[in-house]
Amino acid sequence: MNEELQRSLAAVRGEIDAIDDQLLDLLNRRARCAQRVGEIKAEHGEAGFIYRPEREAQVLRRIQDGNPGPLSSDSVTWFFREVMSACLSLEKPLGVAFLGPLGTFSESAAVKHFGHAAQLSPQVSIDDVFREVESRHADYAVVPIENSTEGAIGRTMDLLMATPLQICGEVVLRIHQHLLSREPSLDKITKVYSHAQSLAQCHEWLNRMLPQAQRISMGSNAQAAQQASAEPGAAAIAGDAAADRYGLPKLASNIEDEPNNTTRFVVLGHQPTGPSGRDKTSLIMSAPNRTGSLCDLLIPFSEAGVSMSRLESRPARHTLWEYVFYVDVEGHRDEPKIAAALEQLAQRAAYFKVLGSYPLAAY
Amino acid sequence: MNEELQRSLAAVRGEIDAIDDQLLDLLNRRARCAQRVGEIKAEHGEAGFIYRPEREAQVLRRIQDGNPGPLSSDSVTWFFREVMSACLSLEKPLGVAFLGPLGTFSESAAVKHFGHAAQLSPQVSIDDVFREVESRHADYAVVPIENSTEGAIGRTMDLLMATPLQICGEVVLRIHQHLLSREPSLDKITKVYSHAQSLAQCHEWLNRMLPQAQRISMGSNAQAAQQASAEPGAAAIAGDAAADRYGLPKLASNIEDEPNNTTRFVVLGHQPTGPSGRDKTSLIMSAPNRTGSLCDLLIPFSEAGVSMSRLESRPARHTLWEYVFYVDVEGHRDEPKIAAALEQLAQRAAYFKVLGSYPLAAY
Repeated sequence: MNEELQRSLAAVRGEIDAIDDQLLDLLNRRARCAQRVGEIKAEHGEAGFIYRPEREAQVLRRIQDGNPGPLSSDSVTWFFREVMSACLSLEKPLGVAFLGPLGTFSESAAVKHFGHAAQLSPQVSIDDVFREVESRHADYAVVPIENSTEGAIGRTMDLLMATPLQICGEVVLRIHQHLLSREPSLDKITKVYSHAQSLAQCHEWLNRMLPQAQRISMGSNAQAAQQASAEPGAAAIAGDAAADRYGLPKLASNIEDEPNNTTRFVVLGHQPTGPSGRDKTSLIMSAPNRTGSLCDLLIPFSEAGVSMSRLESRPARHTLWEYVFYVDVEGHRDEPKIAAALEQLAQRAAYFKVLGSYPLAAY
Repeated sequence: MNEELQRSLAAVRGEIDAIDDQLLDLLNRRARCAQRVGEIKAEHGEAGFIYRPEREAQVLRRIQDGNPGPLSSDSVTWFFREVMSACLSLEKPLGVAFLGPLGTFSESAAVKHFGHAAQLSPQVSIDDVFREVESRHADYAVVPIENSTEGAIGRTMDLLMATPLQICGEVVLRIHQHLLSREPSLDKITKVYSHAQSLAQCHEWLNRMLPQAQRISMGSNAQAAQQASAEPGAAAIAGDAAADRYGLPKLASNIEDEPNNTTRFVVLGHQPTGPSGRDKTSLIMSAPNRTGSLCDLLIPFSEAGVSMSRLESRPARHTLWEYVFYVDVEGHRDEPKIAAALEQLAQRAAYFKVLGSYPLAAY
């Protein structure tokens, strides 16, 4: 290297060192502030709940709105997510239960929401995830609720009806599906393994690119990847985590028909969450079995000008011919118009339960 | 919450917001500096090597030396490791090959050294890890070299003799072994599965606590955990990663006989690494087959006052009755006294190869 290069590099590196000194100082000052929040709460007998989802959501939104770049919005959000995680764990690391094993989308969701300082506790079933938090062995649960490729959504919904836990957050994860195989090219593939939902999500791609291949449905994408890694002529449709876990090369990337393929998870805990300014309220209700009854139930929302972001029906398991509806509306239950609409609903619905109000996913 | 509490919390949170604004600004300024380093190098035709292990080691040491707390030294080191990783990946994410699957100690080592912005590429064998980097499909390799529980050390050493790659860094990972099982208590355990090396590491604990249990050696601890998760009365000895991966509860934690149980990994790349101020040089040499010949070989080091931090012998695979020695010495090959000792050695040894000079593990 010549001298001019050396001099230029030394100048920039001196600048970086100065920035690093300030970063280090600020990180520790921030940690001391977080400790002070804990002390203030303890003095007022509020020591129980150190994690405030609404406050964290506000911090992350501020960061995103103020980010000048060149670091991406996702990248700085991730840093501050981790900074808060480290500061919080100075008091006590949060225990987070989720559907294991590691390497699944559920683990990615748990880390995305709670950061690396959280104590992850993988469970073997969705039921165990709920139980772990209900029994206070873990502080929070992360469970898939929408469009998961792991086939656990129905069970989550059933368990939400019975649990005393409240939804205190949501995580939205972008899901990409890949064709994984040890074979060198597509023309060698005679079988494609995957979870039924993933096969459905890649239906058009398979029709176009692998019309002759047999499609075989498996219990999970991880299982499919395992099978494909052992069998000649086989491929699996699965995500990055499974590709990594089984060391399977990607024959084709991002093959999902719908480019905005996401899975939504909810975070469950014991305490209610205050308003963050951009919130969602989830509830379950059942309608009496007659035409138009669902419409009746929804009138309070439309009259109050409350937007519904999701409505899903499921057969109730206890009574024949009756349906249960899972509804997400925009806003917090503490807002007067939401509170009024919920009160009216409670009077009309055969069954009615507010699952929780919580901040929209931060990133 | 009462008003006084609210006021106190609002004050601290205002302080945190102000700190966050500064952190955000500094992170982006740092990223712009890193981009400038790339531009300066490109102008001088040095664009190839954006990753400088010696510079990163110096940055992390500065941070550790200057850390006032309350964040732990490990915690701030981790942050700056990730900050550098994110800044570097603005230009081009580094591809890092390691022995997969995910959830192994090797993955932890790769992330510990390169941060989350690196593109991890798990391989099915140590040979594949070397090949992946030699063929430039990946930029760097992370391979275990000492006291690994995954039984790959010998192979790493053999491959180091033949590879054109250079060691450009090391990672030291603290390894804890646990007894994992679905059984509720030790008295239900009749079989213990693990890699032979792990069984050996927990020998005394097993003699004391599970004298009756059969010990069965497996190909890897991950395999052992998988077996134990499926078989009644079975337990596995394995680390946290395997416990998480197979969702196995810990019946007993940190059962290794030696409390300072670590595995050392080396990082391999194409370019030589400059001096960082606290460096190590690794080399391989073979001694002629006569008594005292090893002693002869080591004289240049002791005469030059060079400390040896490791000396290990292995039978050479090509000639009968001859040994190959793996030697680590303190210092960089560019330092005059090391350079002179190496030159003398090259004249005396039957076979001699410097594997590389590189910074000591940063944390």
